[in-house]
Amino acid sequence: MSEPAFIAGDWGTSRLRLYLCDPSGHVLARAEGEGAAVPDCAGRFAAAVAPWDKAHGKLPALLGGMVGSTIGWHEVPYLSCPARPEAIAAAALRFEDDDRAIAIVPGLKCVSRTGAPDVMRGEEVQILGALRLYPELAKGRRIICMPGTHAKWVAVEDGAVMEFQTALSGELFDLLRKHSVLARDGGEVRADSHAFTQGLDFFRRNAQADLLYLLFSTRSRVVTGEMPKADGASYLSGLVLGADVDTAASLFDLSPEDAVHLICTPALAALYGKALAQYGLKINVLDGDACALAGLVRIHTEVFS
Amino acid sequence: MSEPAFIAGDWGTSRLRLYLCDPSGHVLARAEGEGAAVPDCAGRFAAAVAPWDKAHGKLPALLGGMVGSTIGWHEVPYLSCPARPEAIAAAALRFEDDDRAIAIVPGLKCVSRTGAPDVMRGEEVQILGALRLYPELAKGRRIICMPGTHAKWVAVEDGAVMEFQTALSGELFDLLRKHSVLARDGGEVRADSHAFTQGLDFFRRNAQADLLYLLFSTRSRVVTGEMPKADGASYLSGLVLGADVDTAASLFDLSPEDAVHLICTPALAALYGKALAQYGLKINVLDGDACALAGLVRIHTEVFS
Repeated sequence: MSEPAFIAGDWGTSRLRLYLCDPSGHVLARAEGEGAAVPDCAGRFAAAVAPWDKAHGKLPALLGGMVGSTIGWHEVPYLSCPARPEAIAAAALRFEDDDRAIAIVPGLKCVSRTGAPDVMRGEEVQILGALRLYPELAKGRRIICMPGTHAKWVAVEDGAVMEFQTALSGELFDLLRKHSVLARDGGEVRADSHAFTQGLDFFRRNAQADLLYLLFSTRSRVVTGEMPKADGASYLSGLVLGADVDTAASLFDLSPEDAVHLICTPALAALYGKALAQYGLKINVLDGDACALAGLVRIHTEVFS
Repeated sequence: MSEPAFIAGDWGTSRLRLYLCDPSGHVLARAEGEGAAVPDCAGRFAAAVAPWDKAHGKLPALLGGMVGSTIGWHEVPYLSCPARPEAIAAAALRFEDDDRAIAIVPGLKCVSRTGAPDVMRGEEVQILGALRLYPELAKGRRIICMPGTHAKWVAVEDGAVMEFQTALSGELFDLLRKHSVLARDGGEVRADSHAFTQGLDFFRRNAQADLLYLLFSTRSRVVTGEMPKADGASYLSGLVLGADVDTAASLFDLSPEDAVHLICTPALAALYGKALAQYGLKINVLDGDACALAGLVRIHTEVFS
């Protein structure tokens, strides 16, 4: 068995995943912890890796995600797009903490097609991981979609992150689901339900109207007896993902037969897969956790060698 | 002084306003109470009007708003559009409660331009009030905008409510303001601020993108240092109202110089007035409470005479 060489940490707002890796990035052990939004990242990190320190000494650590934001451990400035993988690795913030070498990956910023600045922090690690796991993605123009709280649509050209655009899809759906009048007792979201498809279709037929004008149909269809209450969440999800995918198809000039590389969980892949299929787009699903780990491993070889 | 003849009640989800009126609708006394969403409308109504009963006997009462919904006192079915004022009055649900004659105004339903059903309950009373206070509004085609939790855009033709469309503007803004990452410590919304105008402009320049894609700019402009944190709420309000007014202008084929009749509070009138002015639309502001009372008085003469 090979010797441990470094620690990789995927440290988002709400979750920390730690990997003890050998020199080529094989995982020897795992640990978990609370997200970067909880105070005292330094202390919590030290406690989480203490067993590994005892067995192997203080190994260098590479961390990515919100740990590099103002709410995290050490703020790392955003790197501007276009950004190549080696430039992202080179911009990692290096420091010593309690005799350990630590590096934190920078986030990225760009001016999106809307003319506003846009930012990401953590997704850039997954993108680099996807390019490592599937080297063919580093050739030509590729469109990557990263569903989640703040969904990111990313254009990659010959391996460089050119531009991206954030859609508030996950957060907006969760807020409306939990706090609005729209989908109380609205059941579970099911990608294979008629209501989900109906939400997608309804957005598509009315794409000239803003989502703001279509959301209330979730309630009006129920109070007029047209839709069962228990379909509310699926229908609402269809509306929001319809708005997400429809706008992306137009902003990024996607044509039928274009492929979209989805980096996410299987549950989100099922929902987005169905939405993308409505536009004739091909789908390639990549596992989010695997991409994050592969990205950290890739950046590690450039940062610590 | 004239004798009291009836009680008018504007009873929405979160608020009850009661008026003791003489035969021609002049207000002799007022009372307030909790909204229709609180249980036991019958008991709370009886308690609120007990002093008036003691002085004048049990006067008939006309009530409008969510008191006629499934969560209210007695459900009154929605009346379909197009709906003339006399048809709305005729469809009021009449019943006796504890030896008092009570009537509740029906809500309205229509199939909106999106193809989905749409509903209102309470706004129809304000529309009838506006037509009573300003008889010229009952001639030709008029566009009424009723900002609020669920903003309603209404087309009235020769006094009949032809069709309407709900935008989730107020509820969406409140949810994003209170619960999202977008505008924490985002200050107060000011119609005369640069940030509010910037939000309106940004939506207008990007109207082909859905609001879902523009919301995150509230955060990204702050984290990149382009906008002060304290401008967040005004900017976000500009974005949401920009989406509201832009979509209405296109759905209802509004042209510069068309007039929009705003029924709302002065604070909302300032915000919507600025948004509408961007599209060259003329604005006529009507007070929401005054319209509600005038509507109840108008319906009363048809229901109880």
